[in-house]
Amino acid sequence: MVDVAKRAGVGLGTVSRVVNGGSGVREQTASRVRAAIEELGFQRNEVARALRPGKTSTSLALVLGDLTNPFYATIAKAALEVAGQAGYAVVLGSVDEDPEGERRAIQELIGRRVAGLMIVPDQGDHTFLAGPAGAGVPVVFVDRPAHGIEADVVMVDNEGGGRIATEHLLNQGHRRVAILLAPSYYTVGRRLRGYRRAYRLADLPVDESLVISLPEGSRDAAEKATRELMHRPDPPTAIFASTNFLTEGVLRALGETNSQAAVVGFDDFRLADMLPTPVTVVASDIGELGRTAARLLLERADGSAKPPQRIVLPCTLIPRGSGERPPPTA
Amino acid sequence: MVDVAKRAGVGLGTVSRVVNGGSGVREQTASRVRAAIEELGFQRNEVARALRPGKTSTSLALVLGDLTNPFYATIAKAALEVAGQAGYAVVLGSVDEDPEGERRAIQELIGRRVAGLMIVPDQGDHTFLAGPAGAGVPVVFVDRPAHGIEADVVMVDNEGGGRIATEHLLNQGHRRVAILLAPSYYTVGRRLRGYRRAYRLADLPVDESLVISLPEGSRDAAEKATRELMHRPDPPTAIFASTNFLTEGVLRALGETNSQAAVVGFDDFRLADMLPTPVTVVASDIGELGRTAARLLLERADGSAKPPQRIVLPCTLIPRGSGERPPPTA
Repeated sequence: MVDVAKRAGVGLGTVSRVVNGGSGVREQTASRVRAAIEELGFQRNEVARALRPGKTSTSLALVLGDLTNPFYATIAKAALEVAGQAGYAVVLGSVDEDPEGERRAIQELIGRRVAGLMIVPDQGDHTFLAGPAGAGVPVVFVDRPAHGIEADVVMVDNEGGGRIATEHLLNQGHRRVAILLAPSYYTVGRRLRGYRRAYRLADLPVDESLVISLPEGSRDAAEKATRELMHRPDPPTAIFASTNFLTEGVLRALGETNSQAAVVGFDDFRLADMLPTPVTVVASDIGELGRTAARLLLERADGSAKPPQRIVLPCTLIPRGSGERPPPTA
Repeated sequence: MVDVAKRAGVGLGTVSRVVNGGSGVREQTASRVRAAIEELGFQRNEVARALRPGKTSTSLALVLGDLTNPFYATIAKAALEVAGQAGYAVVLGSVDEDPEGERRAIQELIGRRVAGLMIVPDQGDHTFLAGPAGAGVPVVFVDRPAHGIEADVVMVDNEGGGRIATEHLLNQGHRRVAILLAPSYYTVGRRLRGYRRAYRLADLPVDESLVISLPEGSRDAAEKATRELMHRPDPPTAIFASTNFLTEGVLRALGETNSQAAVVGFDDFRLADMLPTPVTVVASDIGELGRTAARLLLERADGSAKPPQRIVLPCTLIPRGSGERPPPTA
């Protein structure tokens, strides 16, 4: 930095202001400083900054599932944008539905002295984050609350979304609505609660044989389960698929068997409107999930001591065709 | 670390071996050390490690475009996996096709003392990376070579892919094959070269009015251009869409106008096989692009001084229906 100041013929403070994007430097001077930086290859050393007393890290960590799931990619993109605008880099930990791996990744990221963590938590226990292992690093949970720690959480209205999806099908006259559930997610449990609530509000009984808990949350598992469902003597006339991957599996199975069962999916996905029967979904603003999480975390990293926030984003139904198929006339 | 050793009643070396995953510690002892770590909230400080003399950083950086494009998400996921297995975290810089933003992001990441950079480069000049501003950080370019610097690059056989897509359409008897090009990408230029080569090999002239350079690489731009193409007095009978986003736009426009034009897209995409006419694509292993890049970079971070590598992955055609529509009989 001293060399840059010498080369540009300015004081150290001026170089610092230019490097840190501060104001009060004439454009001509600033451009001289930038030229000197260019020539000398001066780099602001972010590691040294992170260790400077009183100066905290300029990295946030984001721990989430499979990036090729557009749901996670959308959260990551949005969080990166907000963090980047505030001058923070984002270190990514992608963990594929494995509580042990998630915990290791979190510990490792805390060891890197990040200023905060955004976590789309798995089913594991997060009590350790409240203890000394958490090192006092602020945490925001995304899409699902965590167990064992009080922290900010941003999620969508899973129960409300499950209810409106099911109500939509009941309103078309369907009575045998199957629900496909990925294993043991918090979100999916809430969606099931919404399903039951819709039945209760309509004063109809739930046929428990139509509540299908899948062994895993994959397309293949949903495809297989749907095929089995449709081969029952008394198949459902409608299916509520509780995640975007499950919806895809349901559609594959129904396409094969040429079934006219109605379908509503939870979460929108690309090309949903271009399939042979465009797909009705319950959707929420996933990007907003990531943006809100990043904003909350930046406030915490900045020292905010507000009580933990719980922000719930709304869900809306997008009717496109597959959810508007009537039940077969008896 | 001293406190952990005391609490567990072991030597410092034992704690260090447990923390760094080394062998030669009895499981009982290791679990005592882990318990002490848990109680004391000891964290391996990755920042301090990065500054320790002779010890380099344990972060890699990945700079790429819009994560909600599955192409980039697949590269990111694969690179993260390989880096993670080698004990490296990945700092992400997502830049949306903006050379200035890309350069800023790269400088910023170098300032964070990453051990290496993976870059899916934009059209900008990367000469600065060869100079002092590059700080000697190893770089691997992904999907496209960079300008102004000799470095490892991993890409797919764009020219070969463009050729087989076009040959496939010419072989069905199509003579008026339009090609839609996103603006000024290296990859797209090569795909166009493959298109011209296929025409030349078939001894047919290219109708230059069917080579369409779009103002931007979006679905909307492709949709608009396709609509205009199909309203010409002499429309094409087949379209080669040179990216996955363009393919989607082409399909939307053709769906609207009920056109029976054949389509081949470059790069596979989810649900391509479930659309009303399943989509024929030229595909390559995008995950392998990310894995190879991460492996090359880890070698460089480890001190490899091999001459720059240029790795080219093959493309194959996946026929599904849209690319096998015959031309209308005259």
